[in-house]
Amino acid sequence: MKINSAHGGGGKLMNELIRDVFQSAFSNEILDQMEDAAVFPVPAGRMALTTDSFVVTPLFFPGGDIGRLAVCGTVNDLLMRGATPQYLTAGFILEDGLDTEPLTRVARSMRAAADEAGVQIVAGDTKVIGGRGGLYVNTAGVGFVPAGVEIGVSRARPGDAVLISGFLGNHHAAVLSARMGIANSIVSDCAPLCDMVAAMLRARLTVHAMRDVTRGGLASVLHEIASASNVHIALDGAPLADDQVQGFCDILGLDPLYMGNEGKLTLLLPADEADAALKILRASRYGKDARLIGTVLQSERPLVTARTRSGGSRVIEPLLGEGLPRIC
Amino acid sequence: MKINSAHGGGGKLMNELIRDVFQSAFSNEILDQMEDAAVFPVPAGRMALTTDSFVVTPLFFPGGDIGRLAVCGTVNDLLMRGATPQYLTAGFILEDGLDTEPLTRVARSMRAAADEAGVQIVAGDTKVIGGRGGLYVNTAGVGFVPAGVEIGVSRARPGDAVLISGFLGNHHAAVLSARMGIANSIVSDCAPLCDMVAAMLRARLTVHAMRDVTRGGLASVLHEIASASNVHIALDGAPLADDQVQGFCDILGLDPLYMGNEGKLTLLLPADEADAALKILRASRYGKDARLIGTVLQSERPLVTARTRSGGSRVIEPLLGEGLPRIC
Repeated sequence: MKINSAHGGGGKLMNELIRDVFQSAFSNEILDQMEDAAVFPVPAGRMALTTDSFVVTPLFFPGGDIGRLAVCGTVNDLLMRGATPQYLTAGFILEDGLDTEPLTRVARSMRAAADEAGVQIVAGDTKVIGGRGGLYVNTAGVGFVPAGVEIGVSRARPGDAVLISGFLGNHHAAVLSARMGIANSIVSDCAPLCDMVAAMLRARLTVHAMRDVTRGGLASVLHEIASASNVHIALDGAPLADDQVQGFCDILGLDPLYMGNEGKLTLLLPADEADAALKILRASRYGKDARLIGTVLQSERPLVTARTRSGGSRVIEPLLGEGLPRIC
Repeated sequence: MKINSAHGGGGKLMNELIRDVFQSAFSNEILDQMEDAAVFPVPAGRMALTTDSFVVTPLFFPGGDIGRLAVCGTVNDLLMRGATPQYLTAGFILEDGLDTEPLTRVARSMRAAADEAGVQIVAGDTKVIGGRGGLYVNTAGVGFVPAGVEIGVSRARPGDAVLISGFLGNHHAAVLSARMGIANSIVSDCAPLCDMVAAMLRARLTVHAMRDVTRGGLASVLHEIASASNVHIALDGAPLADDQVQGFCDILGLDPLYMGNEGKLTLLLPADEADAALKILRASRYGKDARLIGTVLQSERPLVTARTRSGGSRVIEPLLGEGLPRIC
């Protein structure tokens, strides 16, 4: 069945679509009340709230799809503040002509990712617009921040170690390959990073700043941290991509520093805790390739540099607009 | 300046757009931290969470715009559960070619509506897609439900009075008029209904069910309540639209029962509290035309009827797909 404008009209057809596609995939006690707003109990403390929209094409790519992305992206944004993600909302904008078969697959993929991340989708919305069968998904999410946890982009300090949870560029390379019809075995890293973050918090590591490395790549994330904390982040020049992604990058002239990821984080914490953090990251589901990539230095102005192969140092510029073919 | 795909790339151009258009309009202590997720303190109790996407064209119409709509829609959804709205997220999907001037006006309109409703926009996201200058906005919102408040679609009871907070159809008629180039003085009713809901809760009225009357119109809302509560909702046949909107409807063959509104609610509560509720509604900013329109009867199956001019009774069918020209 194809979506048409009647599915957004607020009547019986819309209610059937919501029931058959979304409620059947997301079903839980809170959502199933089908009220204007979900209501649930909350403990006193601190809450984290975030939102993200997803516009990726193709909707399905090696290693994931727009639904898994929409859950993981918002879950990861909550985790980066040290929050335990708990409830999500899902807003769908459907273009005329979209088939309900892929839409159903996307909804089921969202449910699977939500189950993996331990969150529930408790509220939703569906709109239909003109177009050519496209699909856009917004997720917002809430989580709760344990007492004592203070993580933020302005908290990086000279002496911090800079870690990444794995090699970079896989998501970007996988989506580009799918879009350009390039055959390779690169798959997206799209994943919820719950277990690695939970384990680090349980171990009471002094995480200063943490960011998932998404749109704009590591260069953009480190620039945000360098600016907010007024420090110099010096990368040691170690490889940031695995051999296959680096090979893909070399052919197309891409730089993993600017490539988007959907299941990688960078983490800054005191250097004497780096080994403990690496051990935890490497033991987690999506962190086996975690590594130390640099250090934080005192500086009078925000700066990001990387050591070159010749032993010198080059300034890493922030991404201007699009340094490489866009994927989102 | 026109939006192009570089504004969604995660780099400097995107950050400038976010700073100059969104942060400058929404600025508050939480948002200005510019983190992956907003963090704020919450009291123990019950929280309401909801989401809504907005795809209206034209972006500006008599009485409102997509930004005011996006704030009011989500604020009203929270209010309908008895929650006090507090924090919103805003997700923007911009089409290539959109001018930053209308986008800035939309953002400022969101801020003004948020101020009126007493909420803060604390997190946001921006994506750019191909297209022809369009704009889609998602808002999610959280609010807190006072102890003792229990409002839901399944709580309507025989003997309840059915009230509406004002005449219906103005938003639908205003957007249709703008889209079709029809000159009249109909303006959208787009508004946050905070003060009327707060006053009713303060007065400890036993509100059983409450819904804002949006997409699908009053017929759809009453069908949802009749189904969830398994009751017969009998409308007394009193006029639902003001003279101007009714005239507009008569010319175009529209029925106010199925028309969308953005600042009207329907409310079911014990008949002996109806006068007190009407008094409160009529004293509130957007409720001067509040009225009693029907009553709830016992029934073996869900049913919605309306008295006809001849004194008979007709069954109000749920909207199938689109009973009338769509506006969202």
